[in-house]
Amino acid sequence: MTAKRDDTQPQSSPPIQEREVAKWDEEVDVLVLGMGATGACAAIEAAEAGVSVRVLERGWRGGGASAESTAQLYMGGGTPLQKGCGFEDDPDEMYKYLVASCGPGADEAKIRIYSDGSVDHYHWITGHGIHFEPGFQPYEVSTHPGPGQGLSYTGSERAHPYCKIAKPAPRGHTVLKDGQMSGEYMMQVLMRSAAEAGAAIQPDTDAERLVVDAAGEVIGVVARTRGEKQTLRARRGVVITTGGFAHNEEMLRRYAPALHGTTYPIGPAIGDDGSGIRMGMGAGGAAIRMDSGCVTLGFAYGHRDNLRGIMVNAQGQRYINEDVYQTNHGEAALYQQAGEVYLIVDDAIYARPDREAEESSVAWEVNIAAVAQTPEELEAELGMPPRSLSHTIRTYNEFAARGEDPYFHKESLWLQPLQTPPLAAIDLRVGQTAYALFTLGGLHTLPGGEVMDVEGNVIPGLYAAGRTASGIPAQGYNSGLSLGDCTFTGRMAGASAATRNP
Amino acid sequence: MTAKRDDTQPQSSPPIQEREVAKWDEEVDVLVLGMGATGACAAIEAAEAGVSVRVLERGWRGGGASAESTAQLYMGGGTPLQKGCGFEDDPDEMYKYLVASCGPGADEAKIRIYSDGSVDHYHWITGHGIHFEPGFQPYEVSTHPGPGQGLSYTGSERAHPYCKIAKPAPRGHTVLKDGQMSGEYMMQVLMRSAAEAGAAIQPDTDAERLVVDAAGEVIGVVARTRGEKQTLRARRGVVITTGGFAHNEEMLRRYAPALHGTTYPIGPAIGDDGSGIRMGMGAGGAAIRMDSGCVTLGFAYGHRDNLRGIMVNAQGQRYINEDVYQTNHGEAALYQQAGEVYLIVDDAIYARPDREAEESSVAWEVNIAAVAQTPEELEAELGMPPRSLSHTIRTYNEFAARGEDPYFHKESLWLQPLQTPPLAAIDLRVGQTAYALFTLGGLHTLPGGEVMDVEGNVIPGLYAAGRTASGIPAQGYNSGLSLGDCTFTGRMAGASAATRNP
Repeated sequence: MTAKRDDTQPQSSPPIQEREVAKWDEEVDVLVLGMGATGACAAIEAAEAGVSVRVLERGWRGGGASAESTAQLYMGGGTPLQKGCGFEDDPDEMYKYLVASCGPGADEAKIRIYSDGSVDHYHWITGHGIHFEPGFQPYEVSTHPGPGQGLSYTGSERAHPYCKIAKPAPRGHTVLKDGQMSGEYMMQVLMRSAAEAGAAIQPDTDAERLVVDAAGEVIGVVARTRGEKQTLRARRGVVITTGGFAHNEEMLRRYAPALHGTTYPIGPAIGDDGSGIRMGMGAGGAAIRMDSGCVTLGFAYGHRDNLRGIMVNAQGQRYINEDVYQTNHGEAALYQQAGEVYLIVDDAIYARPDREAEESSVAWEVNIAAVAQTPEELEAELGMPPRSLSHTIRTYNEFAARGEDPYFHKESLWLQPLQTPPLAAIDLRVGQTAYALFTLGGLHTLPGGEVMDVEGNVIPGLYAAGRTASGIPAQGYNSGLSLGDCTFTGRMAGASAATRNP
Repeated sequence: MTAKRDDTQPQSSPPIQEREVAKWDEEVDVLVLGMGATGACAAIEAAEAGVSVRVLERGWRGGGASAESTAQLYMGGGTPLQKGCGFEDDPDEMYKYLVASCGPGADEAKIRIYSDGSVDHYHWITGHGIHFEPGFQPYEVSTHPGPGQGLSYTGSERAHPYCKIAKPAPRGHTVLKDGQMSGEYMMQVLMRSAAEAGAAIQPDTDAERLVVDAAGEVIGVVARTRGEKQTLRARRGVVITTGGFAHNEEMLRRYAPALHGTTYPIGPAIGDDGSGIRMGMGAGGAAIRMDSGCVTLGFAYGHRDNLRGIMVNAQGQRYINEDVYQTNHGEAALYQQAGEVYLIVDDAIYARPDREAEESSVAWEVNIAAVAQTPEELEAELGMPPRSLSHTIRTYNEFAARGEDPYFHKESLWLQPLQTPPLAAIDLRVGQTAYALFTLGGLHTLPGGEVMDVEGNVIPGLYAAGRTASGIPAQGYNSGLSLGDCTFTGRMAGASAATRNP
């Protein structure tokens, strides 16, 4: 029973005491760690408040997971783009939808501020060089915007039960470049904007340790830049925006075992190792909801007709209305069905996968588990018990022919009997297709980005935002909510740090 | 965006620095915080190692949740009680079962040591005054031991799929007093044993803060005893055994929102407020798997024939083999079916609840949601869609008549068609019956009880065990696993602290 270290994880969290810092190499007002969308927005807001800002970025130029993303921001409440496309929206409807879809345990205070501030945020974003093309991608066609289409549905707003809880509106605002969704372009704009606002960006720099004073206040950072150690004093605050921990196997195993090994992580491998979350925890910050993840099962992304199929579990039972968004599908399949699910289609809706659409999305394989002429044969082919899948298909067909789904209330738009042979089961089991992942748990913050300790006390000088914090998408996810939250909470944290008087 | 405190939670976690301690009121080798089963076993082991031990207990005499428990310890691998009752068991079978049932992400190192050490642990427990009566409660009759029956099944060992993974054996070892399960009696024996070993027990004392030295080593505790502040130096270590956080609403909301508000907590209200977990976190300890809980839906506890009924969800679908243990039922119903489940029985198996049996268990209400003469009528009464529940019942009956359950593989013992009218749906939805809860997440420890920080480094001088740590039942639960883990890991931590040379 001798004490030993569990040495499977990189070291970065224990803070350094002020007395251990011989001298400060540099001093600024606000230090931002990480130059993704969150860091860029924090830096812009802080620099525009008139204080000196430096962003430490691990990579050679910045961008983070945001630059690899599809550049969707979840905004609403009546943005000019929504209005221009003919949609009414309201902050209250947005609030109700988000509380319902980001739970259980959604952070209602954050969602309130986010919903009420969303139109302003739209103006701030567009005021900093981001353009949204004025068209709408019709829901019936795709959630994947095409050229000219800045707006699309990126959640389950129109699906049961959400459509009963809040009036649906499309809220996915996508940044396009040459007609393609481009996180890369979005980050170029935001990074240029940060530089123009006066924030200094220091690449090739790993923030390794926070520095705290004797009272526990965070006062700086020890970094390593091109091999050299560097001590940086932050007079007003340190804002951690280094992303989540989807690429840290050990953290997944410890905090989110359901996500470990079953999925593949989104974002650049050099980021999202949880270093910022661990630094914050080391300084006394509480990390909450660390088991939560965005899990995407994008089976209808490239081929919308797949929503006319039915999703079934290992017993051949339907378990969800198929028209919920791909993230809700990932959550339901992984957490509730143990990742044992199939999509059943008939020849009328089956299509070979569109490789181009897929490549711009997460790569999901189309493996056919079984093909058969009748429901009974398909059931037998899949090794399902008698009268399981066949009953499901026949009952579904009977009601679908009347435009009804009394079981799960799929919108009538997608209801069509599966009756053109052959029938096929597309294999969406874990291991047979991609369950794309990023993490949603992180440091416990106030809406202003202040990091709280285990007792709910604010740790002076320490801020976190984006996926380093537990934010708007606390448990459930829709596309655009992470970048929406990153840009919004990045701004909040940057402003909070800039205006703090130590 | 001004920083403000989130002041909804009691304060206890930030440690005090050694320099802030003017003088030590007392000095011992090992301080144990909390006198439940974990604390008692830690104290015994440490005292028997020959060092001075003091236990600080919040209540007036100790006992904790253990004293309110059903006194079941999950042990196996071939204990004398198992052998005496004619059962073969093996540490490897126990290990395989526990890895399968305590996942995903079960701590295999801990389960290995626990399984390999279980027979020794049995001897240690019985060597410290605990007696197990030499009979077996037949599985077909109950999992609730009666007079003379120290052994019973308290898990899903015989149920699919576990019976295929590991050879089943009953491993629930229950402490009886006057024929009744008695956590109260078990704690009297363990507390007396601790006193006899030389451990001092100081009641009416709240441990409020850990004391750390400049290097971060835990060196003592600041406590409050009958209103007076007291500083206690621990030369070798502090062992935190204060239980989980089932009674802390704010912690449930932050860390385990799925458990918040849907369940009722087990254990005494004065304990299990997470104070020890928070103290450990404040000293740099990592808390892991904080979303996990034991959730019990004990619908067959007092009336075993209920296993002959079928569990269905809101769509009238079966979703589980009914013969899994009550904790697996709680987990499946709450996490996978949103707490929307019913037990369907017919008149042949229905029985008015046995109030006596219930009272010794968790109180669950028997609310009848619907009664009807036919499956179709019952389905309509419950507002379920056509051909949902009726199809489920008719298909189940058809196979049950042949002794088969091709859907979920319930053991044939429990298969019997539901065909004696009337049929009834017992309402087991959240809010309509008790989902009894305690928490399983806690401090990240090595098998020896050493608390690790966020990076996996051991925090010198700090130990945790029982429900203050994340232990054997990391994600899934069987009865007896908590007390089994508490007594075993309490011993490990007590021994580790006693033998540490600072």
